Order: sequence, then structure tokens, then C-alpha cells
Amino acid sequence: MAKIPHRLNLTEDQLPKQWYNLRADMKEQPDPLLNPATFQPIRTEELYPIFCEELAQQETDSSTAYFDIPDEVLDIYKIYRPSPLGRAYNLEKALGTPAKIYYKFEGNNTSGSHKLNSAVAQAYYAKQQGLTSLTTETGAGQWGTALSEACSYFGLNLDVFMVKGSFMQKPYRKAVMQTFGANVVASPSDTTKVGRAILAANPDTTGSLGCAISEAIEKATTTPNCRYVLGSVLNQVLLHQSIIGLEAKTAMEQLGEYPDIVIGCAGGGSNLGGLIAPFMQDKLLGRKNPYFIAVEPASCPSLTRGRYAYDFCDTGKVTPLARMYTLGSGFIPSPNHAGGLRYHGMSPIVSKLYHDRYLDEARSAEQTKVFDAAVQFAKLETILPAPESAHAIRCAIDEALKCKETGEEKTILFGLTGTGYFDMAAYTQYLEHSMTDYVPSDGDLQASFDTLPKIPGIQD
Amino acid sequence: MAKIPHRLNLTEDQLPKQWYNLRADMKEQPDPLLNPATFQPIRTEELYPIFCEELAQQETDSSTAYFDIPDEVLDIYKIYRPSPLGRAYNLEKALGTPAKIYYKFEGNNTSGSHKLNSAVAQAYYAKQQGLTSLTTETGAGQWGTALSEACSYFGLNLDVFMVKGSFMQKPYRKAVMQTFGANVVASPSDTTKVGRAILAANPDTTGSLGCAISEAIEKATTTPNCRYVLGSVLNQVLLHQSIIGLEAKTAMEQLGEYPDIVIGCAGGGSNLGGLIAPFMQDKLLGRKNPYFIAVEPASCPSLTRGRYAYDFCDTGKVTPLARMYTLGSGFIPSPNHAGGLRYHGMSPIVSKLYHDRYLDEARSAEQTKVFDAAVQFAKLETILPAPESAHAIRCAIDEALKCKETGEEKTILFGLTGTGYFDMAAYTQYLEHSMTDYVPSDGDLQASFDTLPKIPGIQD
Repeated sequence: MAKIPHRLNLTEDQLPKQWYNLRADMKEQPDPLLNPATFQPIRTEELYPIFCEELAQQETDSSTAYFDIPDEVLDIYKIYRPSPLGRAYNLEKALGTPAKIYYKFEGNNTSGSHKLNSAVAQAYYAKQQGLTSLTTETGAGQWGTALSEACSYFGLNLDVFMVKGSFMQKPYRKAVMQTFGANVVASPSDTTKVGRAILAANPDTTGSLGCAISEAIEKATTTPNCRYVLGSVLNQVLLHQSIIGLEAKTAMEQLGEYPDIVIGCAGGGSNLGGLIAPFMQDKLLGRKNPYFIAVEPASCPSLTRGRYAYDFCDTGKVTPLARMYTLGSGFIPSPNHAGGLRYHGMSPIVSKLYHDRYLDEARSAEQTKVFDAAVQFAKLETILPAPESAHAIRCAIDEALKCKETGEEKTILFGLTGTGYFDMAAYTQYLEHSMTDYVPSDGDLQASFDTLPKIPGIQD
Repeated sequence: MAKIPHRLNLTEDQLPKQWYNLRADMKEQPDPLLNPATFQPIRTEELYPIFCEELAQQETDSSTAYFDIPDEVLDIYKIYRPSPLGRAYNLEKALGTPAKIYYKFEGNNTSGSHKLNSAVAQAYYAKQQGLTSLTTETGAGQWGTALSEACSYFGLNLDVFMVKGSFMQKPYRKAVMQTFGANVVASPSDTTKVGRAILAANPDTTGSLGCAISEAIEKATTTPNCRYVLGSVLNQVLLHQSIIGLEAKTAMEQLGEYPDIVIGCAGGGSNLGGLIAPFMQDKLLGRKNPYFIAVEPASCPSLTRGRYAYDFCDTGKVTPLARMYTLGSGFIPSPNHAGGLRYHGMSPIVSKLYHDRYLDEARSAEQTKVFDAAVQFAKLETILPAPESAHAIRCAIDEALKCKETGEEKTILFGLTGTGYFDMAAYTQYLEHSMTDYVPSDGDLQASFDTLPKIPGIQD
């Protein structure tokens, strides 16, 4: 058998031409979104004021298994995709493990993360509908960067509401978005009603993702020819991100491999849901039985310590309600450098799969242990991972070390979602031993669970 | 004919197994290095106190055409190489040019630039010789980052003397190097004699590359089992960087293409020399006649306004003398964001090829026009280029626009040496219209030419 290369790049011909909709193969569907005014299941058309129509349809379509990727989207994908499948030979050797460690690397584009996969699709559909502008929020900045690039390409205006804390701490993230032409606003801002109200109540707040979402939605719904877009959580986003898993599966098949364990970091679930999609299909259809692990920060443990309940997606409580693992929309995320994993909820699809035990395990990791793994990986494999991605690395290393004990030659696949170029302040803190681990107390969580909505007859 | 893909990745099997030494095919050789004490041509052994032996031999070997790349070096190359060859379809379309624009992209590794190609080789040979530590200097930080990664991988200690101005302005560059275990020292420092002397004379200096080189060499020659390594200018570096051109040529051949114009940015000449190597071989051997253009900043115009003369490689005047295009080792580089192109001299090989007109043209570009090109490219091709690389983009765009006027369907290849993630302060300045263009006056240059050494009988 030919030696497996350090890195496999599929050819342009092998780029998937369709996204895969995992819901089509789920025996039980995630519970429907609810209209926040009526608590009734939301109709597709009711989403049109917020999302552009094609995306609203993708959001609510649980039966179409495959969606054609438009040619215009493929044209951008082809600049940076198929993304590489790496084999972490050096890491394996350093660990002394019989396990084989593969990673699907999504940091090979200027946005620095997998977020571009959905940003391009969402910007395209907006352009198709004749819209002229979009709004969104960003925390760590990966999504805002990706969407700025996509909007620049399609000639759309973009307002990014960036959590004020990040806005101040990450001026270079802001600069990248501005380079691609985005208007970056520190949230809460005085440009929206909800922002002004929050500022009036708490002038010194550094903002939150939930607050930025509320502002972005207000801006979208009060601006002509404008819609709101979101980089995670939603079904449509997982659909677009399925390209990660589809490519990974094709690449592994080409190598004669199939993963025993698939590991993804989990914030809103976009990377995890995309990476596992075709492998989960195999499991749902009884063809294979890979073991799936979601890894989240111990500081924001929605899967491991949250409730499976209906909740708002934002703190302003203007979004539709989704049934998901959640800490409550009032959850105050603790300081944590994996800003992309600091959301109170979790994708309804991922939540349902976890609830029904198709997603086998959720695991939380403390920040310093995550950075231990990040630095170890960087030194051995020359890729400096984003803190988000390093959660998956932590878990992959732990699983590989278990194999060392048991002697099992398991095949591990994890998602390396992005690079850490804009997270050097966090690395510096780690190197200077000033990084802390924060785990919310049961009391903290109870207080935020108390913010869960009461829904007569459904959730009392 | 099959459509040419947006991006071609050669397979691991196609990774070159040998570096190509351009000197072997040059009819006239670059003038030899001179011993700074005797002004006599330096013998290989005289370089051993500074460079490790294998590298000293590569430095002075003008007859061996191909050097085997050691397996241990190939093992790291395989993590990030072959690097992609891109076709800038979107840029072509936006320009409305009949030209075909290709770029060889070297930003696909954590170091963010082509510098890793030589860093890995130099660290390997040092390890092979049983050395325990290395020293180097870095300006913009790309070389320091690359070498930090390589030393981390091979278990070597590394002291990086970072120009103090960069050290203060680019804390995140410093943090990346520290993450990979390097000891980063602001230069001038109090850790060396030459540093202390400079600080005593001028306590507020923000340093220079030439000064950092002097400190790194002093440190290397006064530390047991330690040598100095350099990221550009030297023949050995161009040898290692030939992998860029070798891959580019193989990829273009696979597409049935050959460049009419090859464009590289030029600081010390490492990228330019590496990119053009196999195409220049074709020209030297009369097989093909591509047109070569070197692009440098108008603020540091060694090829376009410098003298072809013997000069020191550092301001401390401790290095061997090289005959090259130079502005004089006393040249004070002006503020310019392309820190990697801010060196007073130019690779002796590149200099000789330019002097003999095999390298057809050198061109200088002003900073704001370079950033115009950088932002245009980023918006269309989703890659945010390093300011250094953007010099080549500027030229590629200008050449493509000429083709638009003449109707010629020329094939253009340029080197996209790296990404601009750590240069966002520069992009911000550009976006805020506070970026200035600086061009040294003839008087400024005359003053620095006066620092050229007098060499009896050779250069009076």
C-alpha cells in the first residue's frame, strides 16, 4: 500500500457540487423554530423579513437531502478549496501512539477559518435576491472577517456589530474587516434602539454576542433591501458547512481510511455539524458506526451542563425560539480566549443528535489544557491553531494517548477549523502563565437557566 | 483542453527532491566573498566559525547544479508543500485583461511566508553538525517566525535579535516566535558588545537590520556550539528557495503553460532568486526567453538606484564583503511597511544576473500604490497579501493592464510570498489615508554610498 501523504489535497474536480442536508436522514427531526410572539411553529415566510428567501427555505427544509452549490459560490470555493486533509505524523510520533491522527484543515484562506464556507453562500443568495446590504455580529472576529470578504466579492454593503470587548482588544481583526470594506461598529452602539437602551442602563458594558445579534437584526429589519445573516447555530449554516465533511470523507476514502472517532470543537455547532455530516449519515443509515465527540470550553458548557430546551438565540429576545442545548440567553460568558465558542446555545441539529445519542459524547476542556495542546501541536506540525480549534486538538491528543495505553490502532479525525494569528494576546497570556481557568458554578448556571422562556403547554 | 483550475496543488510525489543551484549554469559567476580583514577571497573553512559547515559549503559551491534535499527536511516540507499555484481569474476579469495571471502562493504555512523553506534546511544542517543553538536577526518578523518553527521542530535553542522598532510595534510577531520557544531580544540590546556600544552612543535608537545582524553574529561566535543563520541574500538561501520555482515550473508545465513574464518582489533576493531559478536556467541555456522583473520599494531602491560594488552585509562591518547592488551599509532605511524589503543590499546572484541583463528589469514602487494593489487583490482573490508580496502584485497588475492596451495574451507569473496578518497596522494606515510615500533624495543616497568600503586595487 502506498504511504499516506502528510497532506492530501483533493483536486478541483473533486470539489463537492452539492451540500448535504443531514436532517433528510434523521429519523426524528429537531423541534421546529417557534414564533416568539405566538409560540407557534414558524412558517418559512415569517422568516423572510430577517433572512433572504432562499436561505429561509434552506433553514426550514428538512426533506431535501442535497442542495446544488451555485456556480458563483463554487467559483470562490475553488480559490481555497478543497481544503487539505493532514496526517499529523509528527504528533503521532511524539505521543508514541499507535493511533492515526488526521485533521481537516480549514485555516487555508484569508478569513483564517471555516466560516468562509457559509459566508460565501449567504452573500451570494442575498445578492441573487437583489439585496444591497447585510448585517451581522461577530465575537472573536472570524465570522465577521469571512463575511466581509464574501460581501466585498459580491459588492454588498456590510455592517458588522462587533462585541465591544473584542472591538477594543482586537484592532487588527477590525482592520481586516475594514480592508474588505465592512463598516465595523462596536456593540452595544448608539446606532440602534436596543443598543441605546443597553448603553443607557449600563454605559460601561463591553457587550456580548447576544446583544450584538439583537442590534444586527434591528439594523437589518429597519434598513431597505437589507437582511441579517448568522455564522453558526442555524440549519442553513450547517448545510453549507457540510462541505467540510464531504471533502474529508472523499479524501479519507481515497486513502483507504475511515475514522473510528470524529472530533469537532463546538460553539454554535457550525464546524462540528459540517464535519460530521456525511459520517453521521453513515451512522443514521446503519452503514458505519463512527464515534462522535463534541468538545466545548468548560467556561461555556452548553452541551455538557446545559438544558435541552426552547430558548432565544439572542439576549434581546427578538429571534425565533429554537429547541437546543442552552445555558439560557441570559448567560454571561466568562472571559475565555476561544471567543468563537462562547455562545449560550447550540445548533438545534447538533442538539437533537446529542439528545438522541447519535452524537456519542460531549466533553468540556479547561482553557490552559487547551493551550497546552495548541502549543504542542504548533511545535510539531507547524500550524498555529486558533484557540477554538485547539479544543479538538486537546481531545484528539487525549484519545490518541488512550490508544497508546490500550494498543488500539484507532483512526482519529478532527476538525482544525482555523489559525490563531489574531489570538496572540491569548498565547502570550498562556506563555506568561497568567491564563486562568474559569468554570461556572452550579449557582451561576441556575441563574441563567432562570432566563429560559416560559412557553405555555410546552415549557412551563 | 481542460479548463485551468483556480488553484493547482501538486501531489506529495511531485515535491522536488533536489534544490537547484543557479550558479552552476551561469556563464559568469558572482564575484567571490572577501575576507573583511584581508580583502582576499574567502575560503570555505573561513566561514565555519559563522555558518555550519554544510551551509558554508553550499555557500561557496558554484559548480554543483543539484543538491539532494535531506529526508528530514522533506518531512517538514510535506506538511505545507507543494505550495499552491493560483490562477487569479477574478483579478483578470476585473482588469479586463487578455493576460493570464498566475501566482505561486507561499503563505500557506504558519510562518506565513516562503522563509520557512530555508529555515527548515538551515536548522536541519545545524542539528546534523551537533550544534545546540542558533542566532539570527529579524526585521518584519517573517524570518524570525520561520526559524523559530524550524528550531522548535529540531530541538535547537534560538536567539532572535529583532529590530527594536518592530519589537515594539509588532508584539504579536514576537509572541508567535515565543510560542515556538525562541528567545526574542530587542536590538540593539545590552547582551552584546556591539549592542552596548550602539546604545551608549544613541540610547533612543529603534535599531536596524544591519545592527541586529552584527549582534546576532557576535552572539553566535561567542557562544559554544552556536552558529549564525540568515534568511536572505546568501547563495545558500537562494539554493533552498529554488523549490519555489521548481514547483511553479512543474505546475505550469502540467497546465501546458510557460510564463512570458516572471515577477518577484526583491528585498535581499531570496524569494526572487528562488522563484526565477529554473526559468532563469532555461534562459541561461537558451531554451526559453522569459522576461524577469524585480520589484523593490521606492524607499529602499538597491537595484534601481544602488551601486554594483563590494559592501558589508551589516552595519557593524563584521561580515564578509559581497559584491552586490547596494545603497551602502550605512543606509538608513526609511519608514516603510514592507519591512522585509528594507535591506541595503541585494543577493550577489541576483545582482550579477541583473548586472549581466539576464534579469531584464528592476522596478521600484511607491508604498501607497503597492497597497492599492494589495487591497484590490485581497477583495478579488480572498488572500490578504503581505506588503512585501504586494510589490509583485502591483507589477503584475501593471503588466496585465499593458496587455489590455496591446491585446497581448501574455502569461504572467508572480510570487505571492506571504500573508499580511501581522501587517494590519499598515493596512489601517492605508485605509485612513495617513500612509506616506518616501523616496530618498540623491543627496541621501550619496551620503550612504560614502559608507562603501575602500578596497585597494578593487574598489578605490
